[in-house]
Amino acid sequence: MKKAVCLLSGGLDSSTTLAVAKSEGYDLYALSIDYGQRHKRELSSARKIADFFGAREHKILKVPLSKFGGSALTDNKIPVPEMRKFSCSNPEIPTTYVPARNIIFLSLAFAYAEAVKADAVYIGANAIDYSGYPDCRPDFFKALGKAIALGTKDGRKISLKTPIVKMKKSEIIKLGLKLGVPYELTWSCYKGGRRPCGKCDSCVIRAKGFRAAGIEDPLIKKKRKTQKGASVKQKTGIP
Amino acid sequence: MKKAVCLLSGGLDSSTTLAVAKSEGYDLYALSIDYGQRHKRELSSARKIADFFGAREHKILKVPLSKFGGSALTDNKIPVPEMRKFSCSNPEIPTTYVPARNIIFLSLAFAYAEAVKADAVYIGANAIDYSGYPDCRPDFFKALGKAIALGTKDGRKISLKTPIVKMKKSEIIKLGLKLGVPYELTWSCYKGGRRPCGKCDSCVIRAKGFRAAGIEDPLIKKKRKTQKGASVKQKTGIP
Repeated sequence: MKKAVCLLSGGLDSSTTLAVAKSEGYDLYALSIDYGQRHKRELSSARKIADFFGAREHKILKVPLSKFGGSALTDNKIPVPEMRKFSCSNPEIPTTYVPARNIIFLSLAFAYAEAVKADAVYIGANAIDYSGYPDCRPDFFKALGKAIALGTKDGRKISLKTPIVKMKKSEIIKLGLKLGVPYELTWSCYKGGRRPCGKCDSCVIRAKGFRAAGIEDPLIKKKRKTQKGASVKQKTGIP
Repeated sequence: MKKAVCLLSGGLDSSTTLAVAKSEGYDLYALSIDYGQRHKRELSSARKIADFFGAREHKILKVPLSKFGGSALTDNKIPVPEMRKFSCSNPEIPTTYVPARNIIFLSLAFAYAEAVKADAVYIGANAIDYSGYPDCRPDFFKALGKAIALGTKDGRKISLKTPIVKMKKSEIIKLGLKLGVPYELTWSCYKGGRRPCGKCDSCVIRAKGFRAAGIEDPLIKKKRKTQKGASVKQKTGIP
């Protein structure tokens, strides 16, 4: 059976991408990175998603990028900003940008792929409904693919796959639902609190995607139910 | 003052490269990777060299590539081979190749460089007297440079420097001695024992380099002296 290493953060995009790899007939080798991210709780989502799709292996690698800092996601002194419109007239890269993150993650994924003799590496990057990060764009993946082919032993035999890079968030969600992705298990919020903050880039983009798809986000629905349950308990005093 | 992030393994090449960066007027930010290498003792050499050259910072980052394996340097079940001649007629990549190592290390170096707003990243790769690793060749560095420029926020402002990539080992050694590199503090042997094994690629290439330069390797000299001291102690019984 063909093997694929899939980068899996535990968010909506990477979970959908894992489902795509499975639907394309690959045996799944999921890879998550514990890089000192503020929203580390996404790793618990990654575990559940890898398990749900029957990944052959799921490795969680510690790479403490927080030792470098330079990002609101790895340095608690930099606050997570609220969503601002990213456009050609406002091309500023937000402070949630993590220096060289996808280059690091992909090079680790290719190392893993070479070691297990995989045929493909999947990454759930998206360059349509996104925060404007430079390492999510097709041009970058093309250039990195070339570097990997030149700088590894077997890299040229391993395809770099970015199946959702040019899709709208609503299209990704519809595809994921068709493939059975349990979105209530995924996690997107950068703040990593008990409930999604609803204000950071990641929350806003996710919410817009579900709205455009005409579907209620099952994560929000679940959280609301839990909250409702909790307040009923509080009122009645019945545990 | 200009800042440079320098990848520093603690070996001969990277120590010389650190000295080159210093001689070119950079404030040094040394970066070593504890990747589960068999010859982890090179990290103690890296510490001494960073200290010797007055690095502003020296970060040792744990990135457990041994979790992937696939190399004699990260998997104790694969023995370190003895040196065999690498040539166009024998282009086989040895089992000491670590999947995607320089891509991983350079992407981490660029992450660090972006975070501290450095001007350059130095790597002591060499494609003349080397083991035939694909991630030591100029073509690869050129391609990776392009990918980094496209996939990072400030990568295009940071130069990727490979000052010794096209030098013979003997030339590197002569340059290093001119720049005051204390080679007795460096470590090259892949086996990482108490003394260099003298048989692995790294030992053989180093020894040939010193021979061609007409200089005795100060590390071997030091080890011999220590050994002589130990056997005198043994004979006389005087501690």
